[in-house]
Order: sequence, then C-alpha cells, then structure tokens
Amino acid sequence: MQTQLRAHIEKITPLTDEEFAFVYGHFTTKKFKKHQFLIQEGDPVKYSYFVISGLLKLVYTDNKEKQHVVSFAMEDWWESDYYAFFTETKATMSLECLEDTEVLCCTLEDYKKLCSGLQKMERFFLEKATFGFLGSQRRIISWQTSNSKERYDQLLKQYPSLMQRVPKSLIASYLGVSRETLSRLSS
Amino acid sequence: MQTQLRAHIEKITPLTDEEFAFVYGHFTTKKFKKHQFLIQEGDPVKYSYFVISGLLKLVYTDNKEKQHVVSFAMEDWWESDYYAFFTETKATMSLECLEDTEVLCCTLEDYKKLCSGLQKMERFFLEKATFGFLGSQRRIISWQTSNSKERYDQLLKQYPSLMQRVPKSLIASYLGVSRETLSRLSS
Repeated sequence: MQTQLRAHIEKITPLTDEEFAFVYGHFTTKKFKKHQFLIQEGDPVKYSYFVISGLLKLVYTDNKEKQHVVSFAMEDWWESDYYAFFTETKATMSLECLEDTEVLCCTLEDYKKLCSGLQKMERFFLEKATFGFLGSQRRIISWQTSNSKERYDQLLKQYPSLMQRVPKSLIASYLGVSRETLSRLSS
Repeated sequence: MQTQLRAHIEKITPLTDEEFAFVYGHFTTKKFKKHQFLIQEGDPVKYSYFVISGLLKLVYTDNKEKQHVVSFAMEDWWESDYYAFFTETKATMSLECLEDTEVLCCTLEDYKKLCSGLQKMERFFLEKATFGFLGSQRRIISWQTSNSKERYDQLLKQYPSLMQRVPKSLIASYLGVSRETLSRLSS
C-alpha cells in the first residue's frame, strides 16, 4: 500500500525516497468490514481517508430520515466528511463500507504537518482540491442541464467499474432519481 | 484595490509588506461595462479573476441553446472557467458582467509563480480551493434534499445582498426552477 500511495502522489509530483518516507509516516492503516462505519453522523471526524481497496458511500440523511448518497469512493480516492474534518466540527454525514475496505488515515494535524513540512504535498493537495471542486461543478452543471437518462449515461461512461460494484438503489440515490426510473434507464 | 486584495488574503494568512508587493506584482487590473464578456465560450481562458467591485455571472449554454447560471461572483470572490483555465483548454462557459465591474487578473503562469515563490500563497489557494469544493458539495446536497422553496430560502439566507442585485430570472436559472415558480416563492 506504500507503493499505491506513492504512485498516486507521483502522478502529480515526484518524490525522493526520503520525502516519501516523511509522507508515509503521517498515515496509519485501518481495515473495515462491509457495512461498518468509518464516520457516523454526530461524531467528531478524525481522519481524511485514502482508499487502498474497497468501496465507500458518503451519505447525508435529511430531516425526513431519507438517505442521499453524496459520493462514492473506491481505490485511490480520498474521502471524508470534509467540512467537519477541516472545521473540526461534528459529522453531518456518514461514511460506510459497501465492501470490505482498507484505508490509509491522516489526521488534520498530520495533514497540516505534511503541508508545512513539504511544499510538494501542499501542491499535491491543492491540485486534488482544485479538481475536486471542478468535479463538483461539473456535477452541478449536469443537474442543471441533463435529464436523469443523460446523467445516468454520463456516470456510466465516467465510472464503468463503479457502476458494476454499486447496488442500483444507491446509484439512483446519487443521481436523485427513483429506483423505478433507474430500472427503466438501465434496462 | 491593493488594500482589498491584501485584506482578503490576510483573512487566511498574514503577509509582510514585501510579500504583498511580490503578490500584487502578479496581477493586472481591468474594467468592464455591464453586459461585457470577460470570457466567451470557445475562447482560450487567460485569467483567474478577483472581483474588486461589480457583479458577474458564469453561464453554461446547453446543446438546446438554453443558458444555465452556474455561479455568480461579486466583491472579493474569485471567478473563471476554472476547468479551461487550469487545463489550458477552450472555455465551455462564458463570464459576463451584470454590473460595471473591476477585477484583478492573474494568468496561469503567474498563479504558478505565486505558488512556487511564496508558500503562503499556495496555502491561501489551497484553502480557497478546499472551501470552493465544500461549497459545491453543499449545493449538490441541497439539490438532492431540498425542494425549490427551500433552496430559494437557503440562498436568500446565505447571500441576502446578492439576491437584491441579481434579476429574478437569473436566480431562477441558478436554482434550476422556472421564472414562474420563483415568482411564487419570492412573493
């Protein structure tokens, strides 16, 4: 998993062995079983997670107790309730395993140490945050401009492997359509 | 306008006079009249803009020639077609003045020089990008969980001054509702 994190960072910035040893020293490893929670709504959010293997869903529960899938995360993706993580407030979302999952965990303190200690890591996180913002903006435009069939097709094209691993009901929740509508679209 | 940019950056990180002089040297000033375009779809995107005064709309036009307001930008906000800016591709959106507007402009080359030359600026942009991502994520959750009335009320609460300055038809476009629905909501 050292190799996996290093290859992931080096897509953006090359690191010497010493630099990577410094980086890796700021992570711990955790394993979770399918259905376990990494974050529960109302709890403090200790970590930003880098997914080594497995699959996660980030879920927001509205005031009618309806669950909405905000995002998925699989291998090489970063995930957390980032608002709570960065502002050190309590989780408003939950993060749950859809498969057995192994992650690398980084606390806010260690994230800050990584950024201050190695400018390359600040650049790496800047690029991740920038493209995270752009991805969300693209998703907003897709909600504004496309119907559910088009949104389904875009997702299938962008993440074919995700679509095979995620139950249809969760894809429907992510796209904001009913399970019945999705069945029609994907048949 | 030097004061304005400095105060804006110093909300995140203090700068010495020398550091600010270095920062300010990477910006140029431009003035635009109401209805002028800063970015036109299909053109290269030269700048990231910091709004000194005025009001902008970022617009995506779909394949049926229907316009959708992706975002607004007023005093102290940063705006551009950021995907095109960062990837050095052509604009897929347009950026137009809703009022006479004065901006500070930063090229991608100067943005990179600012980040490499002064780690504080890389931290500043990291914080901006992170909270830009979180704002977009909140907007996605709002689309998933709220009806148009609730989305309108959230926007009014978050940006009361924006709502006074923007025509209703554009607020409707931003929220993804019809002009008629918005009239009912806001009456």
